[in-house]
Amino acid sequence: MTTLDKRFAALRPRIDLDTANALDDALSALAPGDTAAELVDAARDSVRSGKRLRALLAHFGASLGSGTPLGDGDVHLLGAALELYQASALVHDDLIDKALTRRGIATPHVRFARAHAHSSWSGSAPDFGAAAAVLLGDLLFSAAESAMIRQSQRLPHDRAVRLLARYALMHSEVALGQYLDVRAENLPLRAFGPSVSDAREVVLRKSARYSVVQPTLLGAAAAGADEDVLHALESALTPWGIAFQLRDDDLGVFGDPEVTGKPAGDDIREGKRTVLLALTWENASEAERLRLERALGNPEPGPEELTAAADIIEARGRADHEHLIEALIEEGARALDDSPLAPKTRSELLELSRIITARTS
Amino acid sequence: MTTLDKRFAALRPRIDLDTANALDDALSALAPGDTAAELVDAARDSVRSGKRLRALLAHFGASLGSGTPLGDGDVHLLGAALELYQASALVHDDLIDKALTRRGIATPHVRFARAHAHSSWSGSAPDFGAAAAVLLGDLLFSAAESAMIRQSQRLPHDRAVRLLARYALMHSEVALGQYLDVRAENLPLRAFGPSVSDAREVVLRKSARYSVVQPTLLGAAAAGADEDVLHALESALTPWGIAFQLRDDDLGVFGDPEVTGKPAGDDIREGKRTVLLALTWENASEAERLRLERALGNPEPGPEELTAAADIIEARGRADHEHLIEALIEEGARALDDSPLAPKTRSELLELSRIITARTS
Repeated sequence: MTTLDKRFAALRPRIDLDTANALDDALSALAPGDTAAELVDAARDSVRSGKRLRALLAHFGASLGSGTPLGDGDVHLLGAALELYQASALVHDDLIDKALTRRGIATPHVRFARAHAHSSWSGSAPDFGAAAAVLLGDLLFSAAESAMIRQSQRLPHDRAVRLLARYALMHSEVALGQYLDVRAENLPLRAFGPSVSDAREVVLRKSARYSVVQPTLLGAAAAGADEDVLHALESALTPWGIAFQLRDDDLGVFGDPEVTGKPAGDDIREGKRTVLLALTWENASEAERLRLERALGNPEPGPEELTAAADIIEARGRADHEHLIEALIEEGARALDDSPLAPKTRSELLELSRIITARTS
Repeated sequence: MTTLDKRFAALRPRIDLDTANALDDALSALAPGDTAAELVDAARDSVRSGKRLRALLAHFGASLGSGTPLGDGDVHLLGAALELYQASALVHDDLIDKALTRRGIATPHVRFARAHAHSSWSGSAPDFGAAAAVLLGDLLFSAAESAMIRQSQRLPHDRAVRLLARYALMHSEVALGQYLDVRAENLPLRAFGPSVSDAREVVLRKSARYSVVQPTLLGAAAAGADEDVLHALESALTPWGIAFQLRDDDLGVFGDPEVTGKPAGDDIREGKRTVLLALTWENASEAERLRLERALGNPEPGPEELTAAADIIEARGRADHEHLIEALIEEGARALDDSPLAPKTRSELLELSRIITARTS
């Protein structure tokens, strides 16, 4: 049997195609005219690439739920919907974070602002960019929903309704999780103290459940998995989903920009209130806390401030954080041992846990 | 038989309740903690009041589709979904338009920015306000979808899927229409010339179909109306929906702020590219065009500039615009005459056309 990693790699181009097709179907129902050309181009570009983790997990869940090989289940529209929704969330997220690029390409609000600045238009280019990005996100959200509805059309009524309800709960959790994340970033480090439990709540809502648990469960539910299987999957995937984000947060500080695709120190610059930071803060001395305050949330920290912050995180938080990741991976494996899942399913899930919590990318 | 106006008034408090309950159900599925209190409060406040036009039309469509009295059809969740979605669109719209108040209450981005400014938080208060408003809109969008899914659960599978697909098309049209509207506002008056046909496309997409046609059709479709009836309703309601927005645009320039609830001259200040403006521009002299340019899209026009612009619109555009409204009302009435709808249904629809195109509010 080929490794799951390789089967994921083989499925990715098909997901690219499914996603582009689902967007095209939603756009052709709208029949946009020439004046919407910039919006349509930006929509297409925003779904052109990606790791496709959520769609892969939906296909993975479907293969667990039905026993069919990865990619053979009737969940292609679900996979496309998850990628379209992810694109929508990223457009709004990049606007909120004022991110200039994503995967080396100008983010939508920057792109629309540039188009405005390079034209003879009136009004403010950044305002136009922000407005267009809000609406592009809304449009992609609608396109995702159209794909979900077409997916649900192919299912028995009860299963369709449960699938749609789970999908709607997922995106309301993302909105709430993002809000809690933005709010936490605005709390002064000193006055509130980054709290490990608050940071974990954000991770659970906006990342673990959204990026790992729900896509897998949606795929399994679409393929007809029963409640016992869904419950067993959720018990294992929830700690692994948290570990997945914690790994990402470690890479956000210590990862190689060549591999992660993000500029070094970005998480520190943004002042992200990660579990890693909360653990660091708990263990840091007063002098170290002062230095963390000078770097975190500072829009233009010097390289020495960034390095100092990374050193403190390395010294005070990283080891505890690594132990926590290991404990979470263990917790998921134990949940698996206690589950009624078949041995083959369990071993596939363990393979998945290694992929999503790996140290490299 | 009581007038439709009075039956609408009697139904409104029930819609308020349906909407609040649907939001509460969506929120309780999320179980937000204390740190989300500001978001939850803002969500509740944003759906507390409104004219409820879309929900009323859904109930009206259901009563046409099924023959049951207004408010007795099983479309309460649909009505709530339309009001929740409208609240979502308004949150994003007010952010885009930088509106400070709506119905006398601070708009969400202003409210969140103020909460930030009055706290000891770090970071930028307006940035936090904008971020929170994007996410509040996303959350309300999700709550609307949850209500739609619960509505669809109560319907036969085919009807449910058609209803959801129509609903998704509706909100993708709004995103596109809003984008085209924002884009048009950024085109310099002189270089592009406001075009009557472009302005009509925006009106059709973001207003006529969204505010009038689709809510009524969604209600009728939920109640089981067949394709012939839906087609007949669409033929009459489309011109009336355009007339509805044109009436609103006239009030946006000439309406009494006491009655409309909007500050006088707001549409001129925003530089809205209305059909009324396009007709005025076509008929205006060079000197008049220069004066229009000085007022439109000028963030702080003087009172004399606003009055001059309103006078030019009165002299050059208003009569043509009024004729167009009359012609659209006629067009809808003729479509009705050619339709297979029952006499009682037609007379109810004519009553509706008078309500939505009335000159006063």
